[in-house]
Amino acid sequence: MVDGPVNDAPYRLIEEVTFGENVVVFSFTNLYGCEIGDNTRIGPFVEIQRGARIGANCKIQSHAFICSGVEIEDEVFVGHGVVFVNDKYPRVDGDWEQLPIAVERGASLGSGAVILGGVRIGPRALVGAGAVVVRDVGSGETVVGNPARPLEG
Amino acid sequence: MVDGPVNDAPYRLIEEVTFGENVVVFSFTNLYGCEIGDNTRIGPFVEIQRGARIGANCKIQSHAFICSGVEIEDEVFVGHGVVFVNDKYPRVDGDWEQLPIAVERGASLGSGAVILGGVRIGPRALVGAGAVVVRDVGSGETVVGNPARPLEG
Amino acid sequence: MVDGPVNDAPYRLIEEVTFGENVVVFSFTNLYGCEIGDNTRIGPFVEIQRGARIGANCKIQSHAFICSGVEIEDEVFVGHGVVFVNDKYPRVDGDWEQLPIAVERGASLGSGAVILGGVRIGPRALVGAGAVVVRDVGSGETVVGNPARPLEG
Repeated sequence: MVDGPVNDAPYRLIEEVTFGENVVVFSFTNLYGCEIGDNTRIGPFVEIQRGARIGANCKIQSHAFICSGVEIEDEVFVGHGVVFVNDKYPRVDGDWEQLPIAVERGASLGSGAVILGGVRIGPRALVGAGAVVVRDVGSGETVVGNPARPLEG
Repeated sequence: MVDGPVNDAPYRLIEEVTFGENVVVFSFTNLYGCEIGDNTRIGPFVEIQRGARIGANCKIQSHAFICSGVEIEDEVFVGHGVVFVNDKYPRVDGDWEQLPIAVERGASLGSGAVILGGVRIGPRALVGAGAVVVRDVGSGETVVGNPARPLEG
Repeated sequence: MVDGPVNDAPYRLIEEVTFGENVVVFSFTNLYGCEIGDNTRIGPFVEIQRGARIGANCKIQSHAFICSGVEIEDEVFVGHGVVFVNDKYPRVDGDWEQLPIAVERGASLGSGAVILGGVRIGPRALVGAGAVVVRDVGSGETVVGNPARPLEG
């Protein structure tokens, strides 16, 4: 564990983040209370919330939002504007249950994808750009669409 | 009405905004000419345009974009990356008509949803994550998909 | 060619950008190595990557992401949160081929649209809000949905 990202960049907010070695964090980022593994790169306009864990050698692209409850293993690609959801019935009032999300080793989440709470995305799975993932994705499987379904053919 | 948000945060732009009491506004926000009600929270990377009105006790999550013509009542949840649209045929040239959007009390808009101009979202309605809302949503109704349709079952 | 945008704004990063005359660039932007034509307006929370080319009289709305390989002609509207993709199989490891994207004169891309690599969007075409464009769009054609299909009727 090291004290911070390996690069310097203006306009970024980093609070109580546990960094691996050689992490690069771009400008306009809001990271707090999360863990980020070795050699991972975090693009601009990204928020990563408290309790999220990101493995080594990942790419988290611009405009992604990674919430509490998300665990991302090593070598995962999170495309631009990918959004994770951790509540099934979001309401401003009352209680809610935080749903976990797991993204396993080597998976890739295409840009603009939305990943709902409670799902597991298997190793080397591929989520198509703009897909809305509402159930588990198997190892090496490719899913596309809204709701996301296995690619035919 | 008070002079500004109750919290302090770096990197935010606030111009000609009418604030209720106890509003919290996070960093990396661009708010101008809008109204924000009591106890509402505005996340990072949010833009709210001139003329938009947001009620009390709302949560506006990160990366949301709320345009002119949007009226949001009290206790509404606007998820991460939700985008409102106020023009039917966007073009760089020529005239366009601004279409109003109403989001009624207690509604929740899931993360990544897109809300088209001219629609009304009824009280306590639930818009699923990633849904593209092209017509009105009734009171307490749940809609999902692209285009958004009532949830079966 | 001129030295920079015609306006001033806090919190923006501009590096090695070729500007036409009278370009307006808002706050919270990250622009590098790209070309931007006369009178074009770039909204907040926008990233435009190295090698992207944007014509004259365009509007690039907030939260848009424009990647390397994208060529946008004159008078194009790029809605809020539009994301371009330039790799077919994104992975953190190994090689990848950059796919070009062309958006021709006068086209409009609705907010929240996702545009996949390798497609051409014809002149004055209209991409609906939230559409996921996976193949070419003809001149003047309107497409909607995920995947985007020509609008019936």
